[in-house]
Amino acid sequence: MRELFDQVRRGKLSPDDAVARLRHLPFEDLGFAKVDHHRALRVGMPEVIFGEGKSPAHLAAIFVKLAKHGGNILATRADEKQFAAVKKAVRGVEYRARARAIVLPRDQKKYGKGIIAVVSAGTSDIAVAEEAVVTAEMMGNAVQHLYDVGVAGIHRLLANRHSLAEARVVIVCAGMEGALPSVVGGLLGVPVIAVPTSVGYGAAFKGLAALLGMMNSCASNVSVVNIDNGFGAGYVASLINRV
Amino acid sequence: MRELFDQVRRGKLSPDDAVARLRHLPFEDLGFAKVDHHRALRVGMPEVIFGEGKSPAHLAAIFVKLAKHGGNILATRADEKQFAAVKKAVRGVEYRARARAIVLPRDQKKYGKGIIAVVSAGTSDIAVAEEAVVTAEMMGNAVQHLYDVGVAGIHRLLANRHSLAEARVVIVCAGMEGALPSVVGGLLGVPVIAVPTSVGYGAAFKGLAALLGMMNSCASNVSVVNIDNGFGAGYVASLINRV
Amino acid sequence: MRELFDQVRRGKLSPDDAVARLRHLPFEDLGFAKVDHHRALRVGMPEVIFGEGKSPAHLAAIFVKLAKHGGNILATRADEKQFAAVKKAVRGVEYRARARAIVLPRDQKKYGKGIIAVVSAGTSDIAVAEEAVVTAEMMGNAVQHLYDVGVAGIHRLLANRHSLAEARVVIVCAGMEGALPSVVGGLLGVPVIAVPTSVGYGAAFKGLAALLGMMNSCASNVSVVNIDNGFGAGYVASLINRV
Amino acid sequence: MRELFDQVRRGKLSPDDAVARLRHLPFEDLGFAKVDHHRALRVGMPEVIFGEGKSPAHLAAIFVKLAKHGGNILATRADEKQFAAVKKAVRGVEYRARARAIVLPRDQKKYGKGIIAVVSAGTSDIAVAEEAVVTAEMMGNAVQHLYDVGVAGIHRLLANRHSLAEARVVIVCAGMEGALPSVVGGLLGVPVIAVPTSVGYGAAFKGLAALLGMMNSCASNVSVVNIDNGFGAGYVASLINRV
Amino acid sequence: MRELFDQVRRGKLSPDDAVARLRHLPFEDLGFAKVDHHRALRVGMPEVIFGEGKSPAHLAAIFVKLAKHGGNILATRADEKQFAAVKKAVRGVEYRARARAIVLPRDQKKYGKGIIAVVSAGTSDIAVAEEAVVTAEMMGNAVQHLYDVGVAGIHRLLANRHSLAEARVVIVCAGMEGALPSVVGGLLGVPVIAVPTSVGYGAAFKGLAALLGMMNSCASNVSVVNIDNGFGAGYVASLINRV
Amino acid sequence: MRELFDQVRRGKLSPDDAVARLRHLPFEDLGFAKVDHHRALRVGMPEVIFGEGKSPAHLAAIFVKLAKHGGNILATRADEKQFAAVKKAVRGVEYRARARAIVLPRDQKKYGKGIIAVVSAGTSDIAVAEEAVVTAEMMGNAVQHLYDVGVAGIHRLLANRHSLAEARVVIVCAGMEGALPSVVGGLLGVPVIAVPTSVGYGAAFKGLAALLGMMNSCASNVSVVNIDNGFGAGYVASLINRV
Amino acid sequence: MRELFDQVRRGKLSPDDAVARLRHLPFEDLGFAKVDHHRALRVGMPEVIFGEGKSPAHLAAIFVKLAKHGGNILATRADEKQFAAVKKAVRGVEYRARARAIVLPRDQKKYGKGIIAVVSAGTSDIAVAEEAVVTAEMMGNAVQHLYDVGVAGIHRLLANRHSLAEARVVIVCAGMEGALPSVVGGLLGVPVIAVPTSVGYGAAFKGLAALLGMMNSCASNVSVVNIDNGFGAGYVASLINRV
Amino acid sequence: MRELFDQVRRGKLSPDDAVARLRHLPFEDLGFAKVDHHRALRVGMPEVIFGEGKSPAHLAAIFVKLAKHGGNILATRADEKQFAAVKKAVRGVEYRARARAIVLPRDQKKYGKGIIAVVSAGTSDIAVAEEAVVTAEMMGNAVQHLYDVGVAGIHRLLANRHSLAEARVVIVCAGMEGALPSVVGGLLGVPVIAVPTSVGYGAAFKGLAALLGMMNSCASNVSVVNIDNGFGAGYVASLINRV
Repeated sequence: MRELFDQVRRGKLSPDDAVARLRHLPFEDLGFAKVDHHRALRVGMPEVIFGEGKSPAHLAAIFVKLAKHGGNILATRADEKQFAAVKKAVRGVEYRARARAIVLPRDQKKYGKGIIAVVSAGTSDIAVAEEAVVTAEMMGNAVQHLYDVGVAGIHRLLANRHSLAEARVVIVCAGMEGALPSVVGGLLGVPVIAVPTSVGYGAAFKGLAALLGMMNSCASNVSVVNIDNGFGAGYVASLINRV
Repeated sequence: MRELFDQVRRGKLSPDDAVARLRHLPFEDLGFAKVDHHRALRVGMPEVIFGEGKSPAHLAAIFVKLAKHGGNILATRADEKQFAAVKKAVRGVEYRARARAIVLPRDQKKYGKGIIAVVSAGTSDIAVAEEAVVTAEMMGNAVQHLYDVGVAGIHRLLANRHSLAEARVVIVCAGMEGALPSVVGGLLGVPVIAVPTSVGYGAAFKGLAALLGMMNSCASNVSVVNIDNGFGAGYVASLINRV
Repeated sequence: MRELFDQVRRGKLSPDDAVARLRHLPFEDLGFAKVDHHRALRVGMPEVIFGEGKSPAHLAAIFVKLAKHGGNILATRADEKQFAAVKKAVRGVEYRARARAIVLPRDQKKYGKGIIAVVSAGTSDIAVAEEAVVTAEMMGNAVQHLYDVGVAGIHRLLANRHSLAEARVVIVCAGMEGALPSVVGGLLGVPVIAVPTSVGYGAAFKGLAALLGMMNSCASNVSVVNIDNGFGAGYVASLINRV
Repeated sequence: MRELFDQVRRGKLSPDDAVARLRHLPFEDLGFAKVDHHRALRVGMPEVIFGEGKSPAHLAAIFVKLAKHGGNILATRADEKQFAAVKKAVRGVEYRARARAIVLPRDQKKYGKGIIAVVSAGTSDIAVAEEAVVTAEMMGNAVQHLYDVGVAGIHRLLANRHSLAEARVVIVCAGMEGALPSVVGGLLGVPVIAVPTSVGYGAAFKGLAALLGMMNSCASNVSVVNIDNGFGAGYVASLINRV
Repeated sequence: MRELFDQVRRGKLSPDDAVARLRHLPFEDLGFAKVDHHRALRVGMPEVIFGEGKSPAHLAAIFVKLAKHGGNILATRADEKQFAAVKKAVRGVEYRARARAIVLPRDQKKYGKGIIAVVSAGTSDIAVAEEAVVTAEMMGNAVQHLYDVGVAGIHRLLANRHSLAEARVVIVCAGMEGALPSVVGGLLGVPVIAVPTSVGYGAAFKGLAALLGMMNSCASNVSVVNIDNGFGAGYVASLINRV
Repeated sequence: MRELFDQVRRGKLSPDDAVARLRHLPFEDLGFAKVDHHRALRVGMPEVIFGEGKSPAHLAAIFVKLAKHGGNILATRADEKQFAAVKKAVRGVEYRARARAIVLPRDQKKYGKGIIAVVSAGTSDIAVAEEAVVTAEMMGNAVQHLYDVGVAGIHRLLANRHSLAEARVVIVCAGMEGALPSVVGGLLGVPVIAVPTSVGYGAAFKGLAALLGMMNSCASNVSVVNIDNGFGAGYVASLINRV
Repeated sequence: MRELFDQVRRGKLSPDDAVARLRHLPFEDLGFAKVDHHRALRVGMPEVIFGEGKSPAHLAAIFVKLAKHGGNILATRADEKQFAAVKKAVRGVEYRARARAIVLPRDQKKYGKGIIAVVSAGTSDIAVAEEAVVTAEMMGNAVQHLYDVGVAGIHRLLANRHSLAEARVVIVCAGMEGALPSVVGGLLGVPVIAVPTSVGYGAAFKGLAALLGMMNSCASNVSVVNIDNGFGAGYVASLINRV
Repeated sequence: MRELFDQVRRGKLSPDDAVARLRHLPFEDLGFAKVDHHRALRVGMPEVIFGEGKSPAHLAAIFVKLAKHGGNILATRADEKQFAAVKKAVRGVEYRARARAIVLPRDQKKYGKGIIAVVSAGTSDIAVAEEAVVTAEMMGNAVQHLYDVGVAGIHRLLANRHSLAEARVVIVCAGMEGALPSVVGGLLGVPVIAVPTSVGYGAAFKGLAALLGMMNSCASNVSVVNIDNGFGAGYVASLINRV
């Protein structure tokens, strides 16, 4: 900005050109979506694509475009067919089946200063938990997980408590009544990111019960992201681990 | 019934009178409510009055009517003014302030075979918990309580776990995320009656979050009664303790 | 615990080993789920697997693991394909089609002291009712059922009332308006476990109407489990029948 | 209409005047509300005022205006203060306290051909039931009521079944789980108008549970009006009783 | 009942047999459902089967059972496959495709005293409207219909108003905002049965918007049945037309 | 109207015929739907068909009928199969794939006085945005669009702000939190029509979150249409652009 | 902006000062709220204050601050006490009681090109309608109103239809089922702004029923603002009337 | 723990005493609430009391008890009356009126490593924002605030963007549509804690609209706490600022 005015001052740039340049912001038009390459630079994070509902061809096209620039790329909610299309177009991509994620790991640097722990209540919550894990890994974090430690068998969680004690931030995924973040939150003195999952039936209302439970957590160190949003949890935790 | 037919058989009763008697069922008309004296006989339980919204005079009138027969009487959701009116009209009544209940304790017999434990998550849930306590006591049970042992400080619950181990049935009252019944249910092998309370604010939606949480409990020994329904929990627990 | 300290006292165990042993709790790692063999011991109940959404191979693997230990095994919400996979891997399993359950009945002992009655409002509620029946049977109870006695034909229920009179605890499954538990609850003096079912359309909202109706039951001996949760109802009833 | 064209034909009315007259419809302007005197003529019913939220003076002004024409007048949801204002302004008005209604009974004719029965589940539902009663009476019907016959004490309803057998149409008011209309509907072969009431607490959600229950009634002769809408039920029942 | 006592009196029946007979109520057991043949006798209506979700074989079996007794039979929510199965088993059945109904018309008597009008707002509501039509016809009523007269083109309804004027009761089916019953109700002085339909998208929430709209109708002669419940509307209207 | 009376006056028309003619309103009966040809004349707009759920043959039949009269025709929510059927029956129709619309463009006149801008938050909202675009075009408007300018990258919107500055009315489509209309509304001094889309997952509840967000917009120039209702937004915007 | 660069070019402004000035945007700090004086200039509208919940002193302070600049000022949701405080501090303010609005009318210019019509369904909706009226007037529009023309008496609306025919845009306020906008929308070819009101009880759910009804309007020219948001409707209508 | 075993080993402690000591956990009984003094030690945070609904005497008693130990004390949702009671009992307490908080500031140490920024959308959200501010301050953080920068005037936020750039974590409070966290989240690369407020009316549903909006934020660095939970946001932010 300052430089722009300097150039105008020094006569190297006309006022009209300066105004025009201000408008020339760094994104380019793919036709269907304006991809913002500077975003990674701005927030220091890799590019992320939400895969669900995108045709394999469309997803591959976005992947190719993004791959021209550096950094890791992560496509979430992606299935095997989408991966096949991307694999043909981009070298080095991997499919993380449990997390339903396509990754292009190019930047191995550890940006996070500590460990992120990812906890899940039941075995059905693991897909969401793994999405958080892969997100945190793509963002340069060391991750530990602790699965199937729901509150109805509280001794399992307590027996593994020591493995959580070293984490700088903890992600807790739970469906049904969504009680696990409160218990984990009460045990630890670090930020807990709660992820309600759509696991359950009947009055679970596709994650609503868990969401409301987590919003009302009696543990004060809990904040919440959207239902099944493992990515968001991994993203927020990564930012916390960088500060 | 059999007796009725016998009397008809023996000519002591005309068919018409028999039909008429069948219609003459045991309730009498107070004008505003048909009080069913045989109900106590039928289910072996004291009479109960829901006090909320009833004028002191109206409540006292019902109390007087019921007091003519034996057994304990319990008026729930009653305030000091209602108590004053009842006290003038009926000898021996007591006010249990924390439970907001008026009781007329006349039958000291212990009908329950074991102990009923009443657990609450926070100090604000105590009014509901006490309603469960007084209900269970009026129904002839030994009751133990354990208050303020919410899941965010799980060690408090665990430290007092032994006091729950002797109970034949446990009542758990919790507002906010309503997670406590799941944890208690997981620790014990007896039936757990969960009572969501309207404690909380915002997304607690006056007990809805707790209710949904409890309906989706991952502990299989949990069943649920209405929001703030301490009476219902005490009643169900008493029946279980009698079987 | 006491024994542990005794051993330390007697020098048979070093303090470090004692601490280590405290941590060594009884579960083993299957990779995808920590199966807790001591749970049956703890609560005196068989192992239960929630079948829905599990691949036949995955379900069979858990079944095999659990079958190494004694006691009954029950897989709920299981279909014919899952049964085929389990049948190949485990001898003696049976498929209860109406209840959509796979069972491995090995323990014929009657743990329950009385009869559990299972009542359903309509023919469409029978799948849920049967899940309750098979659960109660696997947990060692004598079960009687009474189906298709909805409140719009109240004489059917009344005509069969005697068959309920002997039960120590009653399970009532109903969809649509969910009114049956209130009527049954009013007729009997024992605990009633109400199961809302997702039967109905339009304003039934997949069981929400029945759930709300049951939560607000005017019969005080009613407590409620999740929509379509026949298993939970059978489990709670079994515990009550044991006390 | 035909007459209008005839007059034009016979030259007694100019075309322009005919058009003008067509526009001159029968209502007059009170300033705040266009009162339609012909409505009574059109549907053969008295005038009705919804009292809630109207100032005593405003209510009295409308009452006076309507009283200039014949027929009964009914103000629902009216309190003592509103009645005092109306009483000063209009001769012959009466206050029905339990129904919270002000009436001006001038037309004693019985328009209804049979009896309308009004049933309530609990004593708290009586205010709504009485609104239905007074509405039906003001519309020229013979009315019988049967109160406090909720489904948890089904024998009370059955014992009084004969009193319902003569009714041509039945109104059933119930809060909480709203199950009574289904049971009554199943017992009778006449139309049942169900009125959910806001009686209850917690998961009753101010009548929503009862409303949903009634919408899903398994008795096919049930139709439903708004929560606490005793007036609407009385109105519909009166129309049915006239056909 | 009186006769039973008389027989006991005259010694033709022992008291024990009398008690036994009282229990012997008129239904028989199909194994999966207790069919009540006396219901038709009791309410003077044909037998009705809810077809949705029933296997063709199951539906045919019930149909055969019911066909042994007299009167009309109606199966609602039935598809072509179910019809094929029934047609093989029962002579004289017909399929009403638009109403998705299977009928066995055997009783041509007109029980209804006047005309039932069935009105629909849009062309998509016709399936529900036709279910109401076929129900009313099977119950012995003359039926007139008026379709596609939604409120956004109010002149269409007004232009056909005369065809509604003769009806003794009117059924109005509407989805989306569900406003038509209010307008029709305001035009006529007879009972209006409103049927919300699940037609619409987005904030229509599968009929909830229409249901709420109809519950709050400003026309007092409107009562409401469940979403898409054309059968219930036809049933209630038939009862009204008989009184 | 005046003319009708004149003719009666001059004896050219009998009063009876005049009454009959009044009833003869301009629509004709297709059997399944009353198509109103004068509607276009009345509101000056083309005919529109809601394609979803209509069989290809049915849709083509309506299209043919409407095509006999002049003006543009638009079928929304139409798929390729429906288009194939229409194409065989009507010459000149086109399929706009992204908008899922079939159009018959015959009237090229620009009725709108300015430009309508259509803005979308994400790439997934484009289908809805395109429905708005094609609707506005069929109604004779110049349209500009600006896609993928969601609020999390506010600089993209700001950088393209100038392209919105010329619009007379702006349509904004957004799913998830639905925040874009508030930001756009705050930037501009013209009416903003907000369209919530069903894009999102979890707590988006199929557009409910976006709908509520838009209803509560802190920008006062925002009004809202139904979820995914691109057509309605295009329609309203076209009317505004004509005034 | 261009000017800023020019000044830098001509050396009249240093680059640093230019950057600083860019930051110096036109609002000033009241301590509790940043009032944006240029907003009126930007959108050509008067300043508006939302009065509800503000103390009289606080409201008066904001009023005084805004009054220093030109143009009309409008405070909505204001009561008599707030008006008294403002009246002491600012000369020329008026209180519009029915609209609960305080106005300072200083700019009499007519900015709107046509007439805005404001329609209400019932007398209870008038407060909201009047808020729309006063808003439109303060924004320089000619306004006509038509009150108490709800859909249950459709002839009243039709009889006054001519008064709506001249309007360029119509605002329709309705509570309960919220059906009026659909009927008005169908009669007219101009944009209709629908305002759901919180008028009603029971299943009206404080305006939710009306809101959903309006969102699903079958008239395509309807868009919706928040419940009771007469101000927003007046604002949007004013913008439409200016274009 | 290790020490306990050592003492047993060395014979200084009997096994029984060791077991007893394990049970003697560090909380003491106030009668109505078990206060946990070690909690501060465990999570390194001050004691916090939720003031709402507590009597002044009760609140003061808890305050006194807690004040015996070191560290800051914070009572949220407290009014002037409660403060008066506390002030009499505890020296050095202060009342933060805008935040409705009572504080006893004794520990001035800065535990936070950077700045916490607190942003609010409107002036009505300030009470919640101030609760977050005072919480963060009591927990030893430097706090900056930026109020009244809602999204409808996006330039205000952008103009003050530099003040947010230095923050390590940002709290954003917003009611109505709750869009501000998405915009702030998009501008910054640090964690954003979103607090929905109950500010708004109508379809805001007491914060539900804002809550849903924030849960669906298109900015990935946003996590959410309960409606009006300024305390929770301050607490989570403080933990993040410490890591």
